[in-house]
Amino acid sequence: MAQQSFSGVLRQEPLTEHDTGYVVGIDIGGTNLRVALSDSSGAIIARQSASTAGIRDPQLVVDMIRRSIDKLLQEKGLSRKSLLAVAAGAPGITDVNAGVVIATSYLMGWRDIPLQAMLESALGVPAAIENDVNLAALGESCAGIGQGAKDFVFIAVGTGIGAGIILNGTPLRGMGWTVGEIGYMLVPGAPEEPAGPGEPGALESLAGGEGIRNQWLRAWNPEKTRLPKDLTATQIFDHAAQENGDPLARAILQRSAQLLAYAIYNLSLVLSCPLFVLGGSVGLHPALSPAVQTILRRREQSAHCQVSCSTLGADAQLYGAIRMALDTAIAMQGRNVAK
Amino acid sequence: MAQQSFSGVLRQEPLTEHDTGYVVGIDIGGTNLRVALSDSSGAIIARQSASTAGIRDPQLVVDMIRRSIDKLLQEKGLSRKSLLAVAAGAPGITDVNAGVVIATSYLMGWRDIPLQAMLESALGVPAAIENDVNLAALGESCAGIGQGAKDFVFIAVGTGIGAGIILNGTPLRGMGWTVGEIGYMLVPGAPEEPAGPGEPGALESLAGGEGIRNQWLRAWNPEKTRLPKDLTATQIFDHAAQENGDPLARAILQRSAQLLAYAIYNLSLVLSCPLFVLGGSVGLHPALSPAVQTILRRREQSAHCQVSCSTLGADAQLYGAIRMALDTAIAMQGRNVAK
Repeated sequence: MAQQSFSGVLRQEPLTEHDTGYVVGIDIGGTNLRVALSDSSGAIIARQSASTAGIRDPQLVVDMIRRSIDKLLQEKGLSRKSLLAVAAGAPGITDVNAGVVIATSYLMGWRDIPLQAMLESALGVPAAIENDVNLAALGESCAGIGQGAKDFVFIAVGTGIGAGIILNGTPLRGMGWTVGEIGYMLVPGAPEEPAGPGEPGALESLAGGEGIRNQWLRAWNPEKTRLPKDLTATQIFDHAAQENGDPLARAILQRSAQLLAYAIYNLSLVLSCPLFVLGGSVGLHPALSPAVQTILRRREQSAHCQVSCSTLGADAQLYGAIRMALDTAIAMQGRNVAK
Repeated sequence: MAQQSFSGVLRQEPLTEHDTGYVVGIDIGGTNLRVALSDSSGAIIARQSASTAGIRDPQLVVDMIRRSIDKLLQEKGLSRKSLLAVAAGAPGITDVNAGVVIATSYLMGWRDIPLQAMLESALGVPAAIENDVNLAALGESCAGIGQGAKDFVFIAVGTGIGAGIILNGTPLRGMGWTVGEIGYMLVPGAPEEPAGPGEPGALESLAGGEGIRNQWLRAWNPEKTRLPKDLTATQIFDHAAQENGDPLARAILQRSAQLLAYAIYNLSLVLSCPLFVLGGSVGLHPALSPAVQTILRRREQSAHCQVSCSTLGADAQLYGAIRMALDTAIAMQGRNVAK
């Protein structure tokens, strides 16, 4: 369904000369690399994913990307010449103009990596790079629940928490490429002690995937719950969501939802933005957005926010990357025509 | 000094045809109406202020504005014909495009007031209107400490607290014209109970002028302080700022500064904005911005913020209004030329 609505949305400008061309969207995660081949309408026609566990060297990641793309093209009987452009999302501070990943927290050791140039050199086509949360926001904006919304915020709740802000249809990037670092936001109930280097921020230390797990571990007591001690955030939410669900799991869902609701409320006050889309492995849990929405309803007088679950799910980044790759191909085409 | 730096800054486009023309900037406050006559370079050449105490009827306020402008023109030996445009700031939610004050909290009874049309009808020249905090941000941006800063946030701390956000040199307005309503922001230490109708927001209930006064009243105890019970926020800060200042006054300055620092930190995370300018009657107190800056320094690792006091002081709104009036005159000139 997402792909259906996507077609035509991405192609705001016709790719007249290269209508037979293809682009690739890439999602470089801390544990997985995902590569999707798309036609010029923005529909994914083939995809591949591979583990990046233990791989830290950016050149090795670029080599993996090149091999994945070659395999996808081969699978579809396409030549390298039909590839027009690629775009990749990386989990970290990304200078979109310079094409450099300035710093990542998950891919340790990535500092000032000229990823755009490395991709262009390896693939021989124009490349673009962007922060993965901004790409997910862009994906939801052009192919997901953000379609038609001029202003909205995508909130990725995974291990950490980050926001991609779309204002007037385009991602807000700001100075230093660090817009939307809401994992550090200070809300009532979050720790006030500043986070040390490499430590999670105030909000994510309680409401991120690891934070939720840590809340559970700290509160766990065989007298309070019959559930095992070793549970992930989504498992805790699964138990909370059941009818007559575990009381401790429910309390932790409630507390996490409240912290997130406070952060969303603050964002809404600052940006006057009515739509918030939850994504990321924890943010996609079906119990979370209704719980957050219920808490926000008490504050409707000062800020009206609609909280929805991402419709593209784990593919939001990939769709955003495809959109960026198509834009790159179109820009390149314009430049070639002008020559 | 402010006027000197202003000249030339406002006139980004030459007012060729109307170089002898003048504009008026208006600041409609809850207690005072201020009107400033400016030449086409943006320098204030005459000004007037009058009390609006007890005056609620918008038509009466517009009549006061008309009389003030006539008096200022007369004072300078200028005819009504030399007036090119006016712009007014009002403390409330203002639809800039429609020219309507949607709601104000201080000027009770102002709901959906077509202020732009009323001014145009009374004065016979084009008028523009804007929220007063956005105008103050615009003023600082073109004539104050925000000159040269693409992105910055002006924070007005008066009775309440609001923010004017400048991104890429222009005010962020957003949907519903309610951007920057940070008086309601939820930070650690602020009350979590939602504010009722007409009640101050979480942040301003402690760190706004009235909130600081209420903190003092609640904490006041003759055993803790030799100061009188009845003090204003700025008087409390005056005592806190003295060498060996009153310990209770110091504690309240510290607490207010901490709440503001948390709000600024949150804004900085969301917007990736490095410069914050404090204005408004309480925000201009010389003890506040250093206290806020000291608290923020502990969090420099995750967000670097510079906090400065407004250089235009109480005139920030007037300079913003003059800039808006000049822009309105220029736009009108363009329209006339096109005819």
